[in-house]
Amino acid sequence: MQGNNNDMTVTRRRLLAGAALAGGTAMVPAAAFGAVGGDRAKIAAAVETGKAASVARIQDWIKHPGIAAEKWQMDTACDYTMGLLRDAGFQMVKKMPTDGEPGIFATLDAGAKRTMGIYFMYDVKQVNPAEWSSPPFEARIVDKPGFGKVIVGRGAINQKGPEAAFLAAVHAFKDARVKLPVNLVLVAEGEEEIASPNFHQIVQAPEVLKALKKAEGVIIPSAWQNQNGGVQINLGAKGPIEFQLIASGEKWGRGPKGDIHSSQHAHVDSPVWHLVQALNTLVGPDGHTPAVDGWFDNVRPLTAREKELIAASAKTSSEDEAKLALGVKAWINDEPWQTSLERLASQPTINIQGLVSGYTGPGGKTILPGRAEAKLECRLVPNQTAKEAEAKLRAHLKKRGFGDIEVNVSGGYDPTETAENSRIIRAQQAVYDRAGAPQTLFPRLAGSWPGAVFTQPPVSLPAGQFGLGHGSGAHAPNEYFVVDSSNPKVAGLTGSTLGFVDYLYEISVIS
Amino acid sequence: MQGNNNDMTVTRRRLLAGAALAGGTAMVPAAAFGAVGGDRAKIAAAVETGKAASVARIQDWIKHPGIAAEKWQMDTACDYTMGLLRDAGFQMVKKMPTDGEPGIFATLDAGAKRTMGIYFMYDVKQVNPAEWSSPPFEARIVDKPGFGKVIVGRGAINQKGPEAAFLAAVHAFKDARVKLPVNLVLVAEGEEEIASPNFHQIVQAPEVLKALKKAEGVIIPSAWQNQNGGVQINLGAKGPIEFQLIASGEKWGRGPKGDIHSSQHAHVDSPVWHLVQALNTLVGPDGHTPAVDGWFDNVRPLTAREKELIAASAKTSSEDEAKLALGVKAWINDEPWQTSLERLASQPTINIQGLVSGYTGPGGKTILPGRAEAKLECRLVPNQTAKEAEAKLRAHLKKRGFGDIEVNVSGGYDPTETAENSRIIRAQQAVYDRAGAPQTLFPRLAGSWPGAVFTQPPVSLPAGQFGLGHGSGAHAPNEYFVVDSSNPKVAGLTGSTLGFVDYLYEISVIS
Repeated sequence: MQGNNNDMTVTRRRLLAGAALAGGTAMVPAAAFGAVGGDRAKIAAAVETGKAASVARIQDWIKHPGIAAEKWQMDTACDYTMGLLRDAGFQMVKKMPTDGEPGIFATLDAGAKRTMGIYFMYDVKQVNPAEWSSPPFEARIVDKPGFGKVIVGRGAINQKGPEAAFLAAVHAFKDARVKLPVNLVLVAEGEEEIASPNFHQIVQAPEVLKALKKAEGVIIPSAWQNQNGGVQINLGAKGPIEFQLIASGEKWGRGPKGDIHSSQHAHVDSPVWHLVQALNTLVGPDGHTPAVDGWFDNVRPLTAREKELIAASAKTSSEDEAKLALGVKAWINDEPWQTSLERLASQPTINIQGLVSGYTGPGGKTILPGRAEAKLECRLVPNQTAKEAEAKLRAHLKKRGFGDIEVNVSGGYDPTETAENSRIIRAQQAVYDRAGAPQTLFPRLAGSWPGAVFTQPPVSLPAGQFGLGHGSGAHAPNEYFVVDSSNPKVAGLTGSTLGFVDYLYEISVIS
Repeated sequence: MQGNNNDMTVTRRRLLAGAALAGGTAMVPAAAFGAVGGDRAKIAAAVETGKAASVARIQDWIKHPGIAAEKWQMDTACDYTMGLLRDAGFQMVKKMPTDGEPGIFATLDAGAKRTMGIYFMYDVKQVNPAEWSSPPFEARIVDKPGFGKVIVGRGAINQKGPEAAFLAAVHAFKDARVKLPVNLVLVAEGEEEIASPNFHQIVQAPEVLKALKKAEGVIIPSAWQNQNGGVQINLGAKGPIEFQLIASGEKWGRGPKGDIHSSQHAHVDSPVWHLVQALNTLVGPDGHTPAVDGWFDNVRPLTAREKELIAASAKTSSEDEAKLALGVKAWINDEPWQTSLERLASQPTINIQGLVSGYTGPGGKTILPGRAEAKLECRLVPNQTAKEAEAKLRAHLKKRGFGDIEVNVSGGYDPTETAENSRIIRAQQAVYDRAGAPQTLFPRLAGSWPGAVFTQPPVSLPAGQFGLGHGSGAHAPNEYFVVDSSNPKVAGLTGSTLGFVDYLYEISVIS
């Protein structure tokens, strides 16, 4: 799930030391960490020594994929990930069955005062190998001009590369014989890419809940530095609902059961028109504003502070670059950049991600299809909830005579929010600052991640993303993760690993 | 193109001799043709003798397919068909280039008083081999319970089987050393399945036009007997327009150029919603009545005679069988059978035959697609014209802010009508009667064939389908044509061939 941060923006205002990330193995200056003194140097050396193993770990993980959407190799993928955690030193690693694919609960007790929660996903998005320059599960290392040496493979950036960099950090502590500054509680799921329908079952298991309650918060490892080295800290994310709307002659009781000759449409109803008419009620005449009854009832407008953050972001980021990256000439309503960013953060969406009905090959085939499907997904903002949205959607369709249309909800969860002054956010700011990575504080990721499972009761912890490094192509062909960066402003695998080392230290000491 | 007649209806009122078609090689009683005396017996013997060669001819023709929609093997398919015509005895066989795929002009001068026009199509519909029980171009002969021995292959019924049966009739005259009772003028095209965009170029070539002008009319060989042996004589057909509507960020100037992360829909317009909104304007709130501005301006209501024919058809046909064959529980508006048949004959349609946009695999893929396509086709009734309809469609979309949506018209032509008292219709009635095939006279085929090219100026001839025999699955998997019929009421290949023999005789003598 998640949104791509790369098209977002970067402020240069926190750029302290552009050279800090220099070289293919960007380093965070050791001097910044007086508190840990010689230990960090030992760890940094261990990160260097362990680099080849770390690269191989990412490659091998990519070679062990599991795709929840296709129920493909999930059990194997889960077992493989559990092995990675044991190798890294987690003393307790437990498979957690759910109503769907299994998850993982793991703990590493370092005898530390503080505990950090870590969230992993081990599933990956589907692939169409024909679209890839190298086989998606080969994890080939290639030279990517302007980026450096990268691993190309499904899951490289979303999320195995960054997660493996985090594990490399834990390995480095072990290899350097330095105790971790914080204890770790890790939860992993295998259904992130299908909108985490069962993740709460893992997190709310009594033993997991008890362990998580001790944590400062939860992060998912990421690596979203842009070409200026910039990172965006998101204080929340929208919540998704993924669903299909399926109109069929069979369920409708009108139209044909299967495809029939198109001439019959003169006296036989069409499930395709039925779906088109249903879809047309979901957004307003402007073609984007959700028009489901009551959709905006609980939508909370942006706060003054949120608007302030967006205004700052608008000033220091390039609208032209964002348009270029997205292949977009105009924003909705031709709004100016700042208004458009406010819309990006604040608006709930109902998006059609796919349409499929009848004949889809070249030319036509003169059929009246018996079935039509739209693949949609909503993005919800505070204080909408996934449950509320689904109920409203169903009621809306039913009220308008579309009650026969199947609403197959495959996943979804609530939006998530984390306070700006929480330790897990302030620790990020501190580490990014020292790394010389320009940062932007943004109220809300327009994409989604299942942070609400942590931020809402009963867990009620701050949660977010953290990580240096770069990769891109999530959900797209040729997904990659940078191993050796040729851009001095962007961390490679070593810099990304050290970022996690420093983050764990920061969490252990931050006030 | 064409509509499937098998789901239509049969009147038993003309059933004179149910046994007349008895046996796998149904025969038209020779006694009925006193006029031609011993000649017909010689020809019938030649049909029997030539049967194996005739079966092989159909199989080999199926093994030489051309698919216009895919521009696949068209030239080879044309050449192959020209060879078949030369073999049958056409003295002049000429390739006719067009702006699209080539057609054929062929003549067989028998020194007869009258001339008959014949229309062939040599192209076939696309295939998805995975859906077939045997490879679509293998032309395997299988036992089909309830039908007999059938050839399974793309083009078997639409239209190579019936066309080859016609050629077998011509061969039989030659083999029996009996002169054809009529001269033949044959025109063939390779773009029937893409709605004949260039067929008029062939028919209106001066030499072709001159030759056709001498003909009594034009028929396309068919084989649409139902399980009671019944046939439907269509006094016309609707005209189609096949087109795609394509919305894209590129053309629109809004929305993304390619697929982007779905979260961006919060501030980026969606070409998919744009298409859904455009589609929604094309039919009324009832989900079927065309709502394009001015669509009904030139629609002529059914005449009293047409209503009379439909009423007769409704009485003698089974609504339940039709519903079963189509997999339909209710007609539009829950209308009774007769009203529904009136609607079938009289209503113009705008049908969506396919939708394709974004992600079409299992589950979702969280993208905002850059492109959305709907495949549509209209059926036009007298006195609509294809040109008028296309212009109205474009104007309608433009007026409503959808002028950026591409309207890719791939083919289309006007509806066609032929007078009930024309020789080519009366000859059909006479031959079907003598063959004991119950017949229904229906005002208009709900499907389409490019008869208007013949019935309209400058050719202005009657035109229709004719043929005994059976096959089905046009445009569908496992298309077949019956070679040896196990149903005594339905003709096999021999009966179908003799039907053409008798039709040519009838045309030569009918008043």
